[in-house]
Amino acid sequence: MPAETVVAFEELDAAARAACEIAIVANPRPQDLRAMPNLRLVHSVWAGVERLVADLPDTGLKIVRLVDPQLAATMAEAVLAWTLYLHRDMPRYARQQAARQWLPHDYAPPGRRTVSLLGLGALGAASAAKLLDAGFRVCGWSRSPKALPGVECHAGDHELVAMLGRTDILVCLLPLTPQTRGVVNAGAFEALRRGASLINFARGPIVDDGALRAALDAGRLTHAVLDVFDREPLPADAWQWAHSGVTVLPHISAATDRTTASAIVAANIRRYRESGIIPAAVDRAAGY
Amino acid sequence: MPAETVVAFEELDAAARAACEIAIVANPRPQDLRAMPNLRLVHSVWAGVERLVADLPDTGLKIVRLVDPQLAATMAEAVLAWTLYLHRDMPRYARQQAARQWLPHDYAPPGRRTVSLLGLGALGAASAAKLLDAGFRVCGWSRSPKALPGVECHAGDHELVAMLGRTDILVCLLPLTPQTRGVVNAGAFEALRRGASLINFARGPIVDDGALRAALDAGRLTHAVLDVFDREPLPADAWQWAHSGVTVLPHISAATDRTTASAIVAANIRRYRESGIIPAAVDRAAGY
Repeated sequence: MPAETVVAFEELDAAARAACEIAIVANPRPQDLRAMPNLRLVHSVWAGVERLVADLPDTGLKIVRLVDPQLAATMAEAVLAWTLYLHRDMPRYARQQAARQWLPHDYAPPGRRTVSLLGLGALGAASAAKLLDAGFRVCGWSRSPKALPGVECHAGDHELVAMLGRTDILVCLLPLTPQTRGVVNAGAFEALRRGASLINFARGPIVDDGALRAALDAGRLTHAVLDVFDREPLPADAWQWAHSGVTVLPHISAATDRTTASAIVAANIRRYRESGIIPAAVDRAAGY
Repeated sequence: MPAETVVAFEELDAAARAACEIAIVANPRPQDLRAMPNLRLVHSVWAGVERLVADLPDTGLKIVRLVDPQLAATMAEAVLAWTLYLHRDMPRYARQQAARQWLPHDYAPPGRRTVSLLGLGALGAASAAKLLDAGFRVCGWSRSPKALPGVECHAGDHELVAMLGRTDILVCLLPLTPQTRGVVNAGAFEALRRGASLINFARGPIVDDGALRAALDAGRLTHAVLDVFDREPLPADAWQWAHSGVTVLPHISAATDRTTASAIVAANIRRYRESGIIPAAVDRAAGY
């Protein structure tokens, strides 16, 4: 970006901070954002921007989240990898290995498993395509109705319960908004097919922690792969670390690719300078 | 098979056993095979028949192994699933979870990883296609030269070392023969790219156990996923169970599908009755 002056926040004095027009951020401290009252554009290098939406005043300032095909490809790979992890019983065989137990279990082909995606945006669409290629039956659910080839698409609260009843593996890819907070709650675990498993690659608060633990302990839910948590890093005394039905990952499902993300951020900023228009700007009412 | 009389071995008396012409077997006891001197055809429901070849006299009797597209699809799924398991650092994150350690590691896209297949028959070809779809660089090695689209193919002992030097994940799908016994030995581990990992879905004796343990302990090899062993079930005192660099699986990578395998066995037996010809018969000199 030869037309821009790009400086690290820490290297700016108070006056220079006050003059900043554009911020490129990941997970900034709210007080750092408040130190830049002249901001017109905040570009995240993350896909999830719920904290920015909550922290930044609604003054016409634009928030842009990263919509990167490379990120979608990496997330789709993660969804396939951990779906296969559950499909091929890896957590169970790991427990058997720890007990020196040789015990093969019956194999069910992927065509007999239904994987349901919560969220059918760029990440959900890329994930659905990978899962269909692998032979799984794929359902999807989104706020507004969508159509994706080969995917049984559902929308709205009233269609969620019926989909959960047919779901073997539930994959959460939703943005965190007031509407999605706690959407995977006790009622959802009750509605899920008995013995189903959960993958949360979205945001911690979308899943109700207490309800998750109760569903695991009651055996309604077989396993949960959790990459995101209410507090990150996950505190050392959190119950998830030691629960045999939980796989803890340190928010690694789909890291931002520096090369592709840099090009996208630069192109968006160039477009904003030329036209004032950012196609990918966040809709504050929707929250993403 | 309405034209055949199909009876369980245990239900036959000695005279009926002596009259048997065709046996359908998985892992039969040698003395049971010797009780049927009139056998003309032995059809395995497994792809690997090294024990049958060793146990049955070479008297013109035909041995047929299972070549089932469904088995190849299931094996290819297993190769992809455990390749992604290694690619996405699942063993390392499992160790970190046990230590309550939150520590993300850098992600390398699949295009920067080379997966090499030992064996390019039906199982290797199906696996290569899945790995290419997932974005990995794929090499393959076989006894006789092969050509597979998108795969860098190598053949013969002299080409093995160079391939291993570029390999991040080595997947073993070879039949067990006198030539392949111990082919993954100390020299192979020495030749592998430093920090590579191994998946053995073929037969235990193809990998030299002592050399494997030494390579893991020296840190030359990062991880081994082992589905097959010299003795199965793996004895309770075997070192593999408790080694942090080993994932033990109880021979589950690709189980025979009863529906598809039955149809293939019936078709082969029908063809043999009509023409005496079995296209899939084992070449005893090659051993598979």
